[in-house]
Amino acid sequence: MQRIVLASRPRGAVLPENFRLEEVDLPALDVGQVLVRNHYLSLDPYMRGRMSEAKSYAAPQPLDATMIGATAGVVAASRHPDFAEGDAVIGMLGWATHGIAAGGELRKADPRVPLSAGLGVAGMPGVTAWYGLNRILQAKPGETVLVSSASGAVGSVVGQLARLRGCRAVGIAGGPDKCAYVTDTLGFDACVDYKAGRLKEDLRAATPDGVDCLFENVGGLGLDLALARMNAFGRVALCGLIAGYNGDAQPLYNLKHMLIKRLRVEGFIITEHPEVWPQALDELGALVHSGQLRYRESLAQGLTAAPEAFIGLLQGRNFGKQLVQLIP
Amino acid sequence: MQRIVLASRPRGAVLPENFRLEEVDLPALDVGQVLVRNHYLSLDPYMRGRMSEAKSYAAPQPLDATMIGATAGVVAASRHPDFAEGDAVIGMLGWATHGIAAGGELRKADPRVPLSAGLGVAGMPGVTAWYGLNRILQAKPGETVLVSSASGAVGSVVGQLARLRGCRAVGIAGGPDKCAYVTDTLGFDACVDYKAGRLKEDLRAATPDGVDCLFENVGGLGLDLALARMNAFGRVALCGLIAGYNGDAQPLYNLKHMLIKRLRVEGFIITEHPEVWPQALDELGALVHSGQLRYRESLAQGLTAAPEAFIGLLQGRNFGKQLVQLIP
Repeated sequence: MQRIVLASRPRGAVLPENFRLEEVDLPALDVGQVLVRNHYLSLDPYMRGRMSEAKSYAAPQPLDATMIGATAGVVAASRHPDFAEGDAVIGMLGWATHGIAAGGELRKADPRVPLSAGLGVAGMPGVTAWYGLNRILQAKPGETVLVSSASGAVGSVVGQLARLRGCRAVGIAGGPDKCAYVTDTLGFDACVDYKAGRLKEDLRAATPDGVDCLFENVGGLGLDLALARMNAFGRVALCGLIAGYNGDAQPLYNLKHMLIKRLRVEGFIITEHPEVWPQALDELGALVHSGQLRYRESLAQGLTAAPEAFIGLLQGRNFGKQLVQLIP
Repeated sequence: MQRIVLASRPRGAVLPENFRLEEVDLPALDVGQVLVRNHYLSLDPYMRGRMSEAKSYAAPQPLDATMIGATAGVVAASRHPDFAEGDAVIGMLGWATHGIAAGGELRKADPRVPLSAGLGVAGMPGVTAWYGLNRILQAKPGETVLVSSASGAVGSVVGQLARLRGCRAVGIAGGPDKCAYVTDTLGFDACVDYKAGRLKEDLRAATPDGVDCLFENVGGLGLDLALARMNAFGRVALCGLIAGYNGDAQPLYNLKHMLIKRLRVEGFIITEHPEVWPQALDELGALVHSGQLRYRESLAQGLTAAPEAFIGLLQGRNFGKQLVQLIP
């Protein structure tokens, strides 16, 4: 098998030389284990945090070990009664062409949706959106839901679920193409292009009744301006702060709005809420199957393309869910 | 009667010339109204917000009108069946020696505590502490509760109530005298002097098990350092940000800890939770009466001393609840 390990920890921006491609032999399967050939690797912003040594909610990714990551693949051999050769499965097998996991660490892919969707709209990013909107924001019909990184894996689901709840969905995304996708394909009511240089004015125009619910993926200036648009008793789901992941200082100036507007702000990590996954995955899969939930993927080709694709993700160069296709 | 009106809105720091003393005649009492001779005027940080024109949770204080403020006094004449001459009452009669209010806008002072305490420990500041601790922070026995402005009207109550719940109470206050008062008289487990120049180190030493609950009155550097000390799933009650009330930029650098630690941060305004007042006032009055809840007052003498005392409050020059004694 081929795998990519963390060769060194980044100082600031992630560089290709922080990674190393290796070829290693697969060990023999133990009782209860499953061998999976990975078809897709998911690239997600949280990985940036794991590459640093700084204390966070999870232990750092060890050096010289396979980079952490979710994978979708097909069982190649099984010594676990619940899995048979040919089963499509989702797991955390990392940046690698193959992987071995205990059966309990895998879940069967949803047959109603394409395999790759199990890493995005019908996987962890989708559940993240579902939880933030339903459990933290508790968006009510008629309320305005603002989401940053709106064309991305999480944000795109937030806005579409918000629309299905009868909310006004407003996105922030980078560039006219992404914004057109967010409104025309995903059906958001409005999308603000943060690269257009008029973020404050455009945000005001897109949220004439203010913002009741903010789903934050980015941080930085967008968050500051969004806080200033919040209505009294608004809620903020703090899901990601990708603008600061490479260590650039991203001070917040509009903290006072949390007080003035009596906001409730909550940070969350979706893996800590396993109780919602079955319901969320079931609802998301059904919505994808019925065509009510749309998604878009950026596919990098081959494991060797993963580092560059990941660096692009951190810079917002992806368009939709960033995946690596491991089998042509 | 004498009163102080807002003569002009401050640009930055509040100055004495922003206020003007006036002598006016009292109108005749209408049916349902009560005339009160004020004994004490309460000075509170929220007044700074009202002096500005900027949009906030409440409308700005109008120019040339009596400055807003809570008062404790004695009924001088009544045309309301629930109030009789001589009754001690708490109201919002403003910076004035006398005032007229509808009966429904007054509450009877708690006979178990001194009249002035009805403006502090057994009044709005006490209820603020009670609500933040019990309803937002929901501090559990054994947890560490950190409170800024710990010797002040609100903070002093937060820490004492936290101790009564079996929490570790840690304060932040300015100067060795205030810190000694916080630990020796109020019984906090520790107090950090933010003026000593070692805030980061001292805060770490005072919170060896981290911070589970933060009751924030100040903002600025103390808040940043406190966020870095928060434990996973910590709660933050955002009650005040006095460090920024005069318009100085107070950026927050440690926002990421809200995400990394999965914090819940809530801003609140105590007047919006009238349902808790009866229970909170009853409990606070009983604790003051039994000696379990201690408090300290800074008394300025006479209405003309109010502007200078208010400016001192914003600079942290008061020691305990800042009042103006209107009757020698």
